[in-house]
Amino acid sequence: MSRLVMKFGGTSVADLERIRRVGRLVAAEVEAGRKVAVVVSAMAGKTNELVAWTDGAGAAAQGLPDSDDEYDVVVASGEQVTAGLLAMTLRNMGLNARSWMGWQIPIVTDEAHGRARIEDVRGAVLGEAMDRGEIAVIAGFQGISPSGRITTLGRGGSDTSAVAIAAALGAPCDIYTDVDGVYTTDPRIESRARKLAKISYEEMLEMASLGAKVLQTRSVELAMSQRVPVRVLSSFVEPGEAPGQGTIVCDEEEIVEKRIVSGVAYSRDEAKLTLFGLPDHPGVSSRIFGALADANVNVDMIVQAHARTADSANMEFTVGKRDAKRAEEIVNSLKHEIGFESVALDEDVAKVSVVGVGMRSHSGVAKTMFKALAEKGVNIQVISTSEIKISVLIDAAYTELAVRALHAAYALDQV
Amino acid sequence: MSRLVMKFGGTSVADLERIRRVGRLVAAEVEAGRKVAVVVSAMAGKTNELVAWTDGAGAAAQGLPDSDDEYDVVVASGEQVTAGLLAMTLRNMGLNARSWMGWQIPIVTDEAHGRARIEDVRGAVLGEAMDRGEIAVIAGFQGISPSGRITTLGRGGSDTSAVAIAAALGAPCDIYTDVDGVYTTDPRIESRARKLAKISYEEMLEMASLGAKVLQTRSVELAMSQRVPVRVLSSFVEPGEAPGQGTIVCDEEEIVEKRIVSGVAYSRDEAKLTLFGLPDHPGVSSRIFGALADANVNVDMIVQAHARTADSANMEFTVGKRDAKRAEEIVNSLKHEIGFESVALDEDVAKVSVVGVGMRSHSGVAKTMFKALAEKGVNIQVISTSEIKISVLIDAAYTELAVRALHAAYALDQV
Repeated sequence: MSRLVMKFGGTSVADLERIRRVGRLVAAEVEAGRKVAVVVSAMAGKTNELVAWTDGAGAAAQGLPDSDDEYDVVVASGEQVTAGLLAMTLRNMGLNARSWMGWQIPIVTDEAHGRARIEDVRGAVLGEAMDRGEIAVIAGFQGISPSGRITTLGRGGSDTSAVAIAAALGAPCDIYTDVDGVYTTDPRIESRARKLAKISYEEMLEMASLGAKVLQTRSVELAMSQRVPVRVLSSFVEPGEAPGQGTIVCDEEEIVEKRIVSGVAYSRDEAKLTLFGLPDHPGVSSRIFGALADANVNVDMIVQAHARTADSANMEFTVGKRDAKRAEEIVNSLKHEIGFESVALDEDVAKVSVVGVGMRSHSGVAKTMFKALAEKGVNIQVISTSEIKISVLIDAAYTELAVRALHAAYALDQV
Repeated sequence: MSRLVMKFGGTSVADLERIRRVGRLVAAEVEAGRKVAVVVSAMAGKTNELVAWTDGAGAAAQGLPDSDDEYDVVVASGEQVTAGLLAMTLRNMGLNARSWMGWQIPIVTDEAHGRARIEDVRGAVLGEAMDRGEIAVIAGFQGISPSGRITTLGRGGSDTSAVAIAAALGAPCDIYTDVDGVYTTDPRIESRARKLAKISYEEMLEMASLGAKVLQTRSVELAMSQRVPVRVLSSFVEPGEAPGQGTIVCDEEEIVEKRIVSGVAYSRDEAKLTLFGLPDHPGVSSRIFGALADANVNVDMIVQAHARTADSANMEFTVGKRDAKRAEEIVNSLKHEIGFESVALDEDVAKVSVVGVGMRSHSGVAKTMFKALAEKGVNIQVISTSEIKISVLIDAAYTELAVRALHAAYALDQV
């Protein structure tokens, strides 16, 4: 009998009726002869309620980073509730099941409360229970630190829990969510978006980090490094209906027909800072980006252009929206030291990207992109590229237009 | 520096404002130089919400006793949340605090999920943390079984947690609740009820088991056997206001002026079963009460009276209201085997009791009781006594009248 990890997010377990639906999906896999571990998130809305309480208890208001351990104690209770309820539901269906908390397995993490990283999933006892025919219902998102405290993995961490457990059990991982797979782009923007049968880890990683919210970035990194076969599929199926094939996330080698471009992603969570009249001598960039890094501000796209006068330049870079004001303050605090003229902050920007492993061997991808955007009158502000993606920063108002234009330009509706 | 355990129930931590009030009460004890462990319940209403979910997941509906372990997983999350929030609140006040779950201390219980008994509080690590100046905020009501599962102690179990932890730490235990002490009777019924400065363990145990809901019965038993000094006092004090002296629960020997009667308790959670025409030969009682015990039905008062014909008798006994229908079914199932005539169930009954250690050395207590009730026209259906209490079963409609009459008869308004 093969092992299988199934993961259900907050909307899939939002109430008792949906938990029963999850129970039926689990039962179908058990009937098909699989040994199942189920990883669950908190019921939708529960985590927000718990976080609001921790805010009220002063954690956020007082900016107390040293209360992150207690934040974890409070917030991890949400997954505990779902795990208990699903285990009960499965037993009511006549199945053999029990719940497991992070500390019971144990899922050992580092001590970085609120954003802990999994160091070790000691899956031996869990695996033995599964081998005895017991469905393991596991509270996602949580672990235990070396000092014995409850930790949480940060928002969306249940995906990472599921992949880490799958790696420890030598099992594939089915991620059930509210969409039935990974699409060529967001179907809410482009109705002709097509579901992909397969996507490579590398592409999924780019899609996830570019704003496609199907899987958490860290879970994809982990799946890639541990070679865990992941499938994304929908939990929103009626009784008796199969959840479909979803999208398989796998090694590039397993994808026979490689597409040049697999998808178009976008992110509105961007802000652009422009520094005017920056003195053109060594060490300036390192001073600026060093200060931002010290403040834990992630910088994404960077471009530098010489200004009209030969000895000064303008520089543009992007950060996440929530870091924008802080980044502006940090840069401004360096104005006297560095001697630039001014800073401008623009939050009305979006990043649109095309992703595809086929880019490695095909030229002309960028040309097609720029041409398609130019035809629609979309002005490109910043460009950045990796081996398998090209991203452009544009005026946020053009986001939908640009996504649709690129989807058509690469003929993604014919995938 | 002396150690102190403080316990706060659900209404005392019902929202963030009340949790801050608890924080101030804890801070006052810390400032007075005490090393404090705080035991908390779930926020009022939370446990009911969680229990309702477990009902919805089918635990109650399907009568699945083997899902009690998952019931515990779900319900124990309530105390986890309060413990985290109070630890954060205390840190925001500039104090050093951390939360402890039952499994972290650990508080080892038996495997009787939903009603577990504490077997061992391994308080060494906890005590060391307190000695380092850390306030220990402990999730009440929960423990860990020898097989590593989360257990709960049953309703009101946080009192028992607090007393057990106090015993392990060699500390006294202050139980904060929504009343400011133990009264001669329920002040909602008799406005002239007086707060007792001291009450003996034995008296408190009778009061608790007779329906005075200030302390959970098991916590008093434990305090008595472990000789833990307990104090009952109110958490509902304004900032800057002291919580008063409350009521001290202690050894009889520490009470100098012993009262004959300390209080009048009542319970409406009673049901009376009457068996008519019971054959009068040996083994009948043992057959009936054996069957009830096998079904975990607790029988309280029992009285047997000979009927007019010499060879048959009537028998009356009382059970808790929630067991009434089940007890009736069990008795009826024995009708053929035993051969009695009929069974009657009366749920409109109440038990009223007078309690006092002074009864041991004073006669006439019962006479005063029966006279006072007769003067008000209250008919006594069943009587039961112990060394320090006399209980009578009466028509429930007379409860308040009887309580007030007895309170006056023993001059308890002059305590």
